[in-house]
Amino acid sequence: MARVSSLLSFSLTLLIFFHGYAAQQAQQAQQAQQGQQFPNECQLDQLNALEPSHVLKSEAGRIEVWDHHAPQLRCSGVSFARYIIESKGLYLPSFFNTAKLSFVAKGRGLMGKVIPGCAETFQDSSEFQPRGGEQFEGQGEEGQGQGQGERQRFRDMHQKVEHIRSGDTIATTPGVAQWFYNDGQQPLVIVSVFDLASHQNQLDRNPRPFYLAGNNPQGQVWLQGREQQPQKNIFNGFEPEVIAQALKINLQTAQKLQNQEDNRGNIVRVEGPFGVIRPPLRGQRPQEGDDDDEGRHGRHGNGLEETICSARSTDNLDDPSRTDVYKPQLGYISILNSYDLPILRFIRLSALRGSIRQNAMVLPQWNANANAILYVTDGEAQIQIVNDNGNRVFDGQVSQGQLIAIPQGFSVVKRATSNRFQWVEFKTNANAQINTLAGRTSVLRGLPLEVITNGFQISPEEARRVKFNTLETTLTHSSGPASYERPRVAAA
Amino acid sequence: MARVSSLLSFSLTLLIFFHGYAAQQAQQAQQAQQGQQFPNECQLDQLNALEPSHVLKSEAGRIEVWDHHAPQLRCSGVSFARYIIESKGLYLPSFFNTAKLSFVAKGRGLMGKVIPGCAETFQDSSEFQPRGGEQFEGQGEEGQGQGQGERQRFRDMHQKVEHIRSGDTIATTPGVAQWFYNDGQQPLVIVSVFDLASHQNQLDRNPRPFYLAGNNPQGQVWLQGREQQPQKNIFNGFEPEVIAQALKINLQTAQKLQNQEDNRGNIVRVEGPFGVIRPPLRGQRPQEGDDDDEGRHGRHGNGLEETICSARSTDNLDDPSRTDVYKPQLGYISILNSYDLPILRFIRLSALRGSIRQNAMVLPQWNANANAILYVTDGEAQIQIVNDNGNRVFDGQVSQGQLIAIPQGFSVVKRATSNRFQWVEFKTNANAQINTLAGRTSVLRGLPLEVITNGFQISPEEARRVKFNTLETTLTHSSGPASYERPRVAAA
Amino acid sequence: MARVSSLLSFSLTLLIFFHGYAAQQAQQAQQAQQGQQFPNECQLDQLNALEPSHVLKSEAGRIEVWDHHAPQLRCSGVSFARYIIESKGLYLPSFFNTAKLSFVAKGRGLMGKVIPGCAETFQDSSEFQPRGGEQFEGQGEEGQGQGQGERQRFRDMHQKVEHIRSGDTIATTPGVAQWFYNDGQQPLVIVSVFDLASHQNQLDRNPRPFYLAGNNPQGQVWLQGREQQPQKNIFNGFEPEVIAQALKINLQTAQKLQNQEDNRGNIVRVEGPFGVIRPPLRGQRPQEGDDDDEGRHGRHGNGLEETICSARSTDNLDDPSRTDVYKPQLGYISILNSYDLPILRFIRLSALRGSIRQNAMVLPQWNANANAILYVTDGEAQIQIVNDNGNRVFDGQVSQGQLIAIPQGFSVVKRATSNRFQWVEFKTNANAQINTLAGRTSVLRGLPLEVITNGFQISPEEARRVKFNTLETTLTHSSGPASYERPRVAAA
Repeated sequence: MARVSSLLSFSLTLLIFFHGYAAQQAQQAQQAQQGQQFPNECQLDQLNALEPSHVLKSEAGRIEVWDHHAPQLRCSGVSFARYIIESKGLYLPSFFNTAKLSFVAKGRGLMGKVIPGCAETFQDSSEFQPRGGEQFEGQGEEGQGQGQGERQRFRDMHQKVEHIRSGDTIATTPGVAQWFYNDGQQPLVIVSVFDLASHQNQLDRNPRPFYLAGNNPQGQVWLQGREQQPQKNIFNGFEPEVIAQALKINLQTAQKLQNQEDNRGNIVRVEGPFGVIRPPLRGQRPQEGDDDDEGRHGRHGNGLEETICSARSTDNLDDPSRTDVYKPQLGYISILNSYDLPILRFIRLSALRGSIRQNAMVLPQWNANANAILYVTDGEAQIQIVNDNGNRVFDGQVSQGQLIAIPQGFSVVKRATSNRFQWVEFKTNANAQINTLAGRTSVLRGLPLEVITNGFQISPEEARRVKFNTLETTLTHSSGPASYERPRVAAA
Repeated sequence: MARVSSLLSFSLTLLIFFHGYAAQQAQQAQQAQQGQQFPNECQLDQLNALEPSHVLKSEAGRIEVWDHHAPQLRCSGVSFARYIIESKGLYLPSFFNTAKLSFVAKGRGLMGKVIPGCAETFQDSSEFQPRGGEQFEGQGEEGQGQGQGERQRFRDMHQKVEHIRSGDTIATTPGVAQWFYNDGQQPLVIVSVFDLASHQNQLDRNPRPFYLAGNNPQGQVWLQGREQQPQKNIFNGFEPEVIAQALKINLQTAQKLQNQEDNRGNIVRVEGPFGVIRPPLRGQRPQEGDDDDEGRHGRHGNGLEETICSARSTDNLDDPSRTDVYKPQLGYISILNSYDLPILRFIRLSALRGSIRQNAMVLPQWNANANAILYVTDGEAQIQIVNDNGNRVFDGQVSQGQLIAIPQGFSVVKRATSNRFQWVEFKTNANAQINTLAGRTSVLRGLPLEVITNGFQISPEEARRVKFNTLETTLTHSSGPASYERPRVAAA
Repeated sequence: MARVSSLLSFSLTLLIFFHGYAAQQAQQAQQAQQGQQFPNECQLDQLNALEPSHVLKSEAGRIEVWDHHAPQLRCSGVSFARYIIESKGLYLPSFFNTAKLSFVAKGRGLMGKVIPGCAETFQDSSEFQPRGGEQFEGQGEEGQGQGQGERQRFRDMHQKVEHIRSGDTIATTPGVAQWFYNDGQQPLVIVSVFDLASHQNQLDRNPRPFYLAGNNPQGQVWLQGREQQPQKNIFNGFEPEVIAQALKINLQTAQKLQNQEDNRGNIVRVEGPFGVIRPPLRGQRPQEGDDDDEGRHGRHGNGLEETICSARSTDNLDDPSRTDVYKPQLGYISILNSYDLPILRFIRLSALRGSIRQNAMVLPQWNANANAILYVTDGEAQIQIVNDNGNRVFDGQVSQGQLIAIPQGFSVVKRATSNRFQWVEFKTNANAQINTLAGRTSVLRGLPLEVITNGFQISPEEARRVKFNTLETTLTHSSGPASYERPRVAAA
């Protein structure tokens, strides 16, 4: 009987335990249901400075991926990655399901994109005598037929290759293959934001790289719910016979294109010279006396290609001559939107580059029509961010290599705490609007005194100070006198 | 043994009960899963006339909020609120993460918006002698330097202030701060729709007001899953030292801007006069003989500001001269779309104002490319709404202050049952298209007779009556003879 | 005691079984939760050739519906249906909550749409003497007054009716009622894609037909979570009294419009002639010597209607003169995008028609900015599809009547395995871009040799073959020699 009792008691214990467990499940299911009906992705009570969560190591570099499931990135609808390409490293061509905006944080190199339907405008002209495209095809055939290059008239032809350097901001549309090569001595560091929420991404809200060459032995570790398996290139998915037929090559070469034995990852080391055709660097240009602007963007066209194929997709945000806010004592801010770079209208992203000195402050502001992703390229800053409930959801230090998302409407103030604080902000709108809380173009300045006196229960005199004391528009000193009593002259 | 049995029986009962419970959970989890994969937000078998679910009380008014989780609002992708501002009440400046379209249902007042980057075009010209903007800054400094206003040349300058009155429809873009002041004797009642589903809202599908001044002691009660805490203004989230530095004010004033001791809510009472600079009211305009149209929209420009800063964002839907459908015996209908007010193209919303007399009927119709949110401003009507399954999902009375959503494609017929039925419809498309089921421009009229005879199995003669009997386009009498045998002449 | 034991044991078994069950539920709930937060709709490890999952039978035809919950359709954000209309069958007018792109796969017939606000431009001119619109109304009245048609001057007037035939591709905006009539001897087969993910659909992600006439006794079987009930037409949802008042008809006719006794479904048989006014067929046009292009699209206008009302919404993709890729030995490909048919910009869809001979191959390619829905109209092909992970997610035969979705970025190769393989691809972008993996305009051709040699670890000579051997752009022979050693001359 004792045994019966103890069994029963065990059975009841199980039941009770189980009931609690099931109740918890019930609650979770209910939450899931509510959540499903109305995801509160932006119920953000705390933000964090984020660092990469996954590192994909390659032969000549690494790709660091931020977890796009982090609440603040989920709210912002983007994902983020950093590419570190060592000297002589080649990031093999890949494309994404999303629009992408990249910023060259460090180093220099070469970049190529292959835009479908555009001509191979870069040709080795020293060896090639143009006689029209169709004829060229025949020549290739003929030349190769006579002993593999003996009388060969050209070495290669391909689409545009551009020099890139620190400060370059590069727009890439979905589905367009892109490669990078580090031809400098230092690592080439590129950070990229991927707009998952835009309708240009027609898949789900995950960043999905498609590899043309190379592979990723670690798999797409950033994807939840996918059983991890090594990620291969596209050719790997086709039968070698199909590749051979499509490319008119032998089976052996077709198999090589699948990179199956390859463990180098997606950034490989180039042995020997990397002899792609490239325009001269700025300043190295031969004296042809032609249009400087054309040279700057590496366009070699004949008028016919001056269409979508030659549409500019790169601009340099560190170019001092294009600065939008410039105060020698404090720093500068440069903005890149679709007025500067029309392709941004298409990809619905824009960028802001900032650089401030110690103790300079970016006046408090909010993004009216965009989420912002702030990435620190140098130094560190003290940042405060305030959400819709008036709560400070971030109050801390962000430093080089960290990222913080600033959702639409959230107010932010930045103060440099190192000798120089430099950052780039990616915004999810081709023409992101900033509203400032202080300064000559601020919201307070636009309000009547009566709204301010009544809203804050302060005297007209105090309201005048609140409205008119700060004459700067964006940047100010963060270490002014502790107390101000009257308006002052603008520093700039 | 009996005890063992009873225990066992209890245990089994528990198990069975529990099994049922868990099965229910399982079902819910499964539904959640299915739902998650494919939310059926518009599986609407019943609509209801909705009233506000939350009331936020303030010193001089209240804000009434509809539950945007109600199925028909969730399907429509919008939220809705009503602002009741008492005489001398000031709705303090706030902004939203969404585009907003507002309608002044009752009363009159003043409205101001602060558009980032636009100049303070409203200046107290009687005291101010313009000598150029930059000089003005210096003057302010100088004037204040010499004894706080002794030789002060101007009292205030701020962005545009507009008179608003019953019938005004006001478009507001996300992130733009807006305030209202009731300078009449009656309550000022404004209703607003917030487009949560548009890509202009880059946060989640919740309406999120951001307060510049004031606060909301009750918290954002409309948000599910957020632990309620009082909602503060933006300044509250920053350290007072930061505010002091940014605004060049002393710490004491900075603390006042945080409204921490303030329990007035977001609509406060203005004691004494509210002396903002404002244009003369229509009809009160001094005889300057200048362009009436400019005066109507309160534009004071010099040509340079005639850009986005002066873009019109308000139009009056009760203005008899702009009526689109007018039948003296029946009523009128006015439409405001992006052809009238180009900013609507940007915010992807439009509006319709209707006013019909007792026993007038708005012919059955559906919205081809928009959801509609119907709000009753006066009187009452009998409304029938039919869903995609051909079921009557609403058949009832709606009266003043109630709201009903009419999803895309759902057909609706409205018949006034009070002396006068007046309503406003907000539509989630800048150019919402209506298709009517009856009348001269109806879908039946556009169909060949053969389609009608075969579709409804009626004789050609019946089909002719179906097609041609109703000559009106939008409004008709709802109490005509019970039986019609042949076509009639149009009433209007 | 044995009985106690056995009961206990049963109880424990139940518990254990149950625990496993509940654990499974817990897991499902958790997945639901994760999924809810971040649906991985495009985590596609396997694609399938899909056939219809539901068949709606009607008097004179049937509607076959694909399950839009199938993972690949969910990822693509579309639903799909096939309409089989027998000879003399009339598909009664209905409209959808989504934009729709249709393709006439077989047969010929008539098609009419009713665009709101547009005039009835098709009139029986032999009996009608135009004297202006208003007068016409009076005439109708008068004519009918004098004995129902005795002196009647016109028989009917309605909106545009168009001839349709195999190859026609028809764009339809949401909320616009459309009907089809089969005036041929063979079944008229139309396939349609519905864009659920576009913002033009303002309801949830379900296709929702609204019936003007007819009904669907089986109910909306493709909707999950809806209790199935027969689907009725719109009139059915209104009270007959309301219909009678709105249409000025008697109650009896109003009741007939509800089709309540009708079990014919939505495709009904027309007895006797179907005498709608229609333009002459191409080639049958009377010798009026006027603009052929106008005749082709059946426009009858007077200049005033040459606006949205006459906007072309149909083009024929089998018209040999408009082929984009044409190789007599291999086949042809025709593309219809918004440059050809501007209304496609509005509905955000485009189409591609392909026809290839046995052993022809469409070179491997991916869609850069669109999902594609491939439907086979004739013959069969071997298709391979590769996902973002480099896995072959489809490798099989697709044959007439089957459908397969090719998500954005997924690479696909097609090889005809029957005498002729013909298909239509609907794409979720008004200007879908294709990138090819092989051929003269391929991505490999645009890459520098150095990227290819380093990416695939092949010799420069192999890389040259990879780049330059295939000179065709889209189509090639799928059964070339097993091994190619050097570049060849383009077949076309």
